[in-house]
Amino acid sequence: MKFVSFLRNGTPSWGCVDDRGLFDLGARHSGLYPDLKSYISGGMPLEIFTGLRDADLALTDIELAPVIPNPDKIVLAAINYWEDDTDPDKVPSYPVLFLRLPSSQIGHGAPLIQPRSSQKLDFEGELAVIIGQGGRHICPEQAMDHVAGYSIYNDASVRDWQKHSHQFTPGKNFVGTGAFGPWMVRSEDMPSPKTGFALTTRVNGVEKQGTNTSRMIFDIPYLISYISTFAPLQAGDVIVTGTCTGFGITRDPKEFLTPGDVVDVEIEGIGVLSNTVEAEEEAKSHAYPTA
Amino acid sequence: MKFVSFLRNGTPSWGCVDDRGLFDLGARHSGLYPDLKSYISGGMPLEIFTGLRDADLALTDIELAPVIPNPDKIVLAAINYWEDDTDPDKVPSYPVLFLRLPSSQIGHGAPLIQPRSSQKLDFEGELAVIIGQGGRHICPEQAMDHVAGYSIYNDASVRDWQKHSHQFTPGKNFVGTGAFGPWMVRSEDMPSPKTGFALTTRVNGVEKQGTNTSRMIFDIPYLISYISTFAPLQAGDVIVTGTCTGFGITRDPKEFLTPGDVVDVEIEGIGVLSNTVEAEEEAKSHAYPTA
Repeated sequence: MKFVSFLRNGTPSWGCVDDRGLFDLGARHSGLYPDLKSYISGGMPLEIFTGLRDADLALTDIELAPVIPNPDKIVLAAINYWEDDTDPDKVPSYPVLFLRLPSSQIGHGAPLIQPRSSQKLDFEGELAVIIGQGGRHICPEQAMDHVAGYSIYNDASVRDWQKHSHQFTPGKNFVGTGAFGPWMVRSEDMPSPKTGFALTTRVNGVEKQGTNTSRMIFDIPYLISYISTFAPLQAGDVIVTGTCTGFGITRDPKEFLTPGDVVDVEIEGIGVLSNTVEAEEEAKSHAYPTA
Repeated sequence: MKFVSFLRNGTPSWGCVDDRGLFDLGARHSGLYPDLKSYISGGMPLEIFTGLRDADLALTDIELAPVIPNPDKIVLAAINYWEDDTDPDKVPSYPVLFLRLPSSQIGHGAPLIQPRSSQKLDFEGELAVIIGQGGRHICPEQAMDHVAGYSIYNDASVRDWQKHSHQFTPGKNFVGTGAFGPWMVRSEDMPSPKTGFALTTRVNGVEKQGTNTSRMIFDIPYLISYISTFAPLQAGDVIVTGTCTGFGITRDPKEFLTPGDVVDVEIEGIGVLSNTVEAEEEAKSHAYPTA
């Protein structure tokens, strides 16, 4: 089962997608579940699928929004994969975490915005974990019970602004840089995260990043447990689990995105998140409701 | 005019305070303005004061919440004051910015929580700027037109978690550490920020930090302009403008807060924000609605 958030003629809604098309569950259940976050918060009851026969829409009728357009928080891990040359003695003791604002997010198919103020837009393909049942002080052994599902994130980064100081905040929060989609796949519909999912990032069809989520340094249970030590996790919260080597600034020579470039992030069992770069001047507004 | 957010028997509301007491504007205008953020977003119309005679409540009838319990974003500057020994050649080129989650906030009088997992809770007294009219790409010359008012912030920090990695996120986002209050004073009711406001932080009555907001390195117009380059500012957004020297970890010997300590942050023209430290085990729940 795949869940999406979307805009239909500019009005936000959410729904589920299968071979028949898109079911507009926001329109059908606007009272109880006005958005995907509220459905997750309500425990994702299966009754909502009773009697669904013909799809309401085709995917081509709507504009996909970020999977969760309005999360309470988006917590991201920096580089978090074992590489062939990773020295176990140099692995940090704790994950490197930063925050993204919901206003920086875009959905599958929306333009990735190269800001006016930078020529150093870069990509990072990552697995996104969407929290179901919230909690604080969650132990690693119970952490996977708090996962509603998985999606794909392109944590696109404006490298010069990221390095204005030692804190990443500006370079990780430009409008139109947090691509999140195309949909959420429920955790019960995915293979075991321990076995791992293949993760590949391509720019204009050329593979730039390739790994498997089983190679994370700080795994999903660790991240959930660590974050919930300081902040209460809530339904719909997004944990973006970090990237592997191969993004543009790690390459020799360095490679940055320019208008027209197409970035695809593919994760086994989920699908492909695809966005095309546009310069800020040309970009249409892609602001999604955040409250 | 002073604006507050509060809980009355557990129900969130907001209002204004003067010598007569507290006017519950949330109860009087729940349709149009359910919270202080919506009133700011609506342009803070003065009609709301028409016909107010007798106060609805005394401040002792309610529990103050963070001034804006549910901001779209809280952007904080790290150390941002000229000290007597600041070397102009070593001042950074850009402000050091990080984000706080609304779930970390508390109001005036609520306990500052020393978490179970740390003995290194520290204080930072700061001026908070609350955004009125939102915008993106705001130039410094017009930035002050986007300020709704001012308040006081204690950016309490869990120093060991702040230094788990090079990103401050965990140590700046513990529950019960972002004290914000007691109220917002409208910008037109304050002296000019260029002249500056005296800022003093005391622990158990002993002055630990003392400066004037005119001594900021990156001033309010600069911060608003810089932040709005990457993120759209919205009504109710909070910019916490950084601290001066004198906080606990800069002292010799280092001083950390322990249960029972009282931290007062005073800013000329606004008032005093006061919070008493409690250990996490004893602390009552102080979760405020964030959506």
